[in-house]
Amino acid sequence: MNAVLQYIEDNQKRFVDELCQYLRFPSVSAQPEHRADMAACAEWLANHCRQIGLEAEVRPTAGHPVVVARTRRTGKPPYLVYGHYDVQPAEPFELWKSPPFEPRLEGRSLFARGACDNKGQNLAHLIAVEAYLKTNTELPCDLTFIIEGEEEVGSKNLEEFLQANRKELACRAVVISDTGMPSLKHPALTYALRGIFACEILLRGPSRDLHSGIFGGTVDNPAMALCQMLAQLRDKNGRVNIPGFYDSVAKLSAYERQQAARIPMTEAQYRKFLGVPKLFGERGYTFVEQRSARPTIEINGLTSGYQGEGSKTIVPSWARAKLTFRLVADQEPDRIQKLIMKRLKELCPPTVKMEVTAGHGAEPYMMSPTSPLAQAALRTLKEAFGHEPISMREGGSIPIVTQFKKVLGAECVLLGLALPDDNAHSPNEKFSLDCFEKGSRMGALLWPELAKLG
Amino acid sequence: MNAVLQYIEDNQKRFVDELCQYLRFPSVSAQPEHRADMAACAEWLANHCRQIGLEAEVRPTAGHPVVVARTRRTGKPPYLVYGHYDVQPAEPFELWKSPPFEPRLEGRSLFARGACDNKGQNLAHLIAVEAYLKTNTELPCDLTFIIEGEEEVGSKNLEEFLQANRKELACRAVVISDTGMPSLKHPALTYALRGIFACEILLRGPSRDLHSGIFGGTVDNPAMALCQMLAQLRDKNGRVNIPGFYDSVAKLSAYERQQAARIPMTEAQYRKFLGVPKLFGERGYTFVEQRSARPTIEINGLTSGYQGEGSKTIVPSWARAKLTFRLVADQEPDRIQKLIMKRLKELCPPTVKMEVTAGHGAEPYMMSPTSPLAQAALRTLKEAFGHEPISMREGGSIPIVTQFKKVLGAECVLLGLALPDDNAHSPNEKFSLDCFEKGSRMGALLWPELAKLG
Repeated sequence: MNAVLQYIEDNQKRFVDELCQYLRFPSVSAQPEHRADMAACAEWLANHCRQIGLEAEVRPTAGHPVVVARTRRTGKPPYLVYGHYDVQPAEPFELWKSPPFEPRLEGRSLFARGACDNKGQNLAHLIAVEAYLKTNTELPCDLTFIIEGEEEVGSKNLEEFLQANRKELACRAVVISDTGMPSLKHPALTYALRGIFACEILLRGPSRDLHSGIFGGTVDNPAMALCQMLAQLRDKNGRVNIPGFYDSVAKLSAYERQQAARIPMTEAQYRKFLGVPKLFGERGYTFVEQRSARPTIEINGLTSGYQGEGSKTIVPSWARAKLTFRLVADQEPDRIQKLIMKRLKELCPPTVKMEVTAGHGAEPYMMSPTSPLAQAALRTLKEAFGHEPISMREGGSIPIVTQFKKVLGAECVLLGLALPDDNAHSPNEKFSLDCFEKGSRMGALLWPELAKLG
Repeated sequence: MNAVLQYIEDNQKRFVDELCQYLRFPSVSAQPEHRADMAACAEWLANHCRQIGLEAEVRPTAGHPVVVARTRRTGKPPYLVYGHYDVQPAEPFELWKSPPFEPRLEGRSLFARGACDNKGQNLAHLIAVEAYLKTNTELPCDLTFIIEGEEEVGSKNLEEFLQANRKELACRAVVISDTGMPSLKHPALTYALRGIFACEILLRGPSRDLHSGIFGGTVDNPAMALCQMLAQLRDKNGRVNIPGFYDSVAKLSAYERQQAARIPMTEAQYRKFLGVPKLFGERGYTFVEQRSARPTIEINGLTSGYQGEGSKTIVPSWARAKLTFRLVADQEPDRIQKLIMKRLKELCPPTVKMEVTAGHGAEPYMMSPTSPLAQAALRTLKEAFGHEPISMREGGSIPIVTQFKKVLGAECVLLGLALPDDNAHSPNEKFSLDCFEKGSRMGALLWPELAKLG
């Protein structure tokens, strides 16, 4: 192992050069004009995998291709490493201090679109394997890398790809570095993600906008009816006010609450960062718990009547709200949808007609933070970063994680290398070379730990 | 008087021809390309007034001119007749069965933009005076006609005009035919109009839209905060839920309620006409009373967050509502504004910042429906139409009425000649020739009745 770690240390300069090559491809999956860049990036990546000693292929999908790279099969425990070579659009270009596809080093920060999300993170895992192969160190696991090209557009074709290659991709677990860590001193294992249920409520009142002088006072106002319905969906303690909504919410354990308390940010810092006059959330939980371990209701959009300058004296014909509910283990989107629909029907007055359209749903994800798999990951983080790691939940939803669970039956070990100020999805995205190097070490140290699980 | 009425009957064909001439001017005050048509229409009108024996002038304002026409001063009781020669835009043209400025007669209906609103109605009053003058019948009042060109764009320059000519325009009352009547069998005196107070509420939460997964659950959602505030402004009995709001609302008298009950429309007809599943209004009042004699709160528009297709998982940075309150006698917009502001401040949670912008306000108008002036008008209506007239309130606000009251100290007698299906402001506007003829009779019969008031 010493040889592996030494190799990583000795070749940092070249690794950074290779990351820069990788970052120069404007592999923007959302923009059709970058189709050729996507293909070129995938070819470069497959070629790079071959150069470091892996078998690699560019495998087609209905959309952008998937790069699959494998170590030689030896009968050792099989693991998957997931990443993506596509990036977010770089717009607005004018906000970048240097061109997004011309990597620029400033101190220990490498600025480029895709630097942390996700090229730097998946390259770190490839470097770890390269170090094993080039130092002739026995790799204690059989590894398959799946680096897709559609993560930023919803991984539309990944599930089908996983289904079609289920046997080939069978594994003990999936390792993913595509999340965050609170600081270089707080390496993190993300063991849970929230799920989601989205829906749209449309209330119809009069058959057309009515003059509020001539008719106002005799018909319900759909905008008011909507407000009165929505107002009842969240109580003054910040709880979702739908009977049965919390029935299957897993309680936070003492261990989880103690871990959440270690996140290095004060309420005052957080409040300032968000720019709100006062924080607000479910009573009885810290803001860290509220945003990751507790379910929510959010109004994402409201539309009704006149929206221009000045006033227009109407009773609007209709009013619409877009809602999303974040879900946590062990809530099931289908059951939650039924509870929501039931409650909305109860709340809707007879003076308006209601149409509810269910949108996307995603299950929450959770693996035990005290399982052997999690413990192995935490030991690795501690050794790689030299600091006590945090086990944490994150509030967002990552559909690929539930896809891996569903199709391959495998848990996902989320070992994020992005720092809070890395500007993923924003102008001036960057990646810390410290995270890059320590992430490569982590990648190397991980396989003996996972191999021990048998 | 018989000669006067006979003259009106005998000259109907010519009067309709003259109305058609008047209607051929596309006098659209809102559209700059019709400026010359506006001037030509005002000239035609002044000229017509001279032909029937009045002194007439086209008087400039900062906007479109006012036509002022007067009978010879004799020291008899002075009265004003108000009307307007400007019309609404005719768009969308494609919905008209015949061109809007080429009058078309179908049975007893004359179709053209401006037919009922307001050319037909003000010409009826000119015909009445013509009949007196041409039959050498002594007119029992000294009359001044003010026919303006900016009613459809808010009568912006009328108040200044009234102020500047206060002495010349001093009068006992102002007669206006620019409202409606329920049917030819229900001629109507409108004795009250609602006032209005408009405002806009803006709630600001986080400094930018936030990712609802990463941050949702820790900050208040401005759209939800707005819904919860607005929801509390109207109770389940349809009353405005603001302390003190009803303090100065004049009670409906037994006479008023009995009159309201005579409006010839059932609840079922009304509900069908509006296209709502169920009517809704303040408990304890009929729909006729609710829409004319009771104050209201209406949300005219709601705007927050994402409004496009599909979903966007954000906590929106802000949410906005446009509100109007219709007011009734004796509510004062300034006092109501204070009550509303106070209530909004009480309701606004500390988790968002609120900005309230006051919009336009207009006082409610009311004259006593049992005053000698009202009784004189009702006697006239009965004689002119041959049916028992209704005293009614209307729900809209007509700013000129309060301007006359404020500047000249004069009550307005509103004797509307438009039928409910006359399509004012809509394609295929029309005017009934029965209303035109009976309206002219009404105009003639009115002056002896008003003269009796001394």
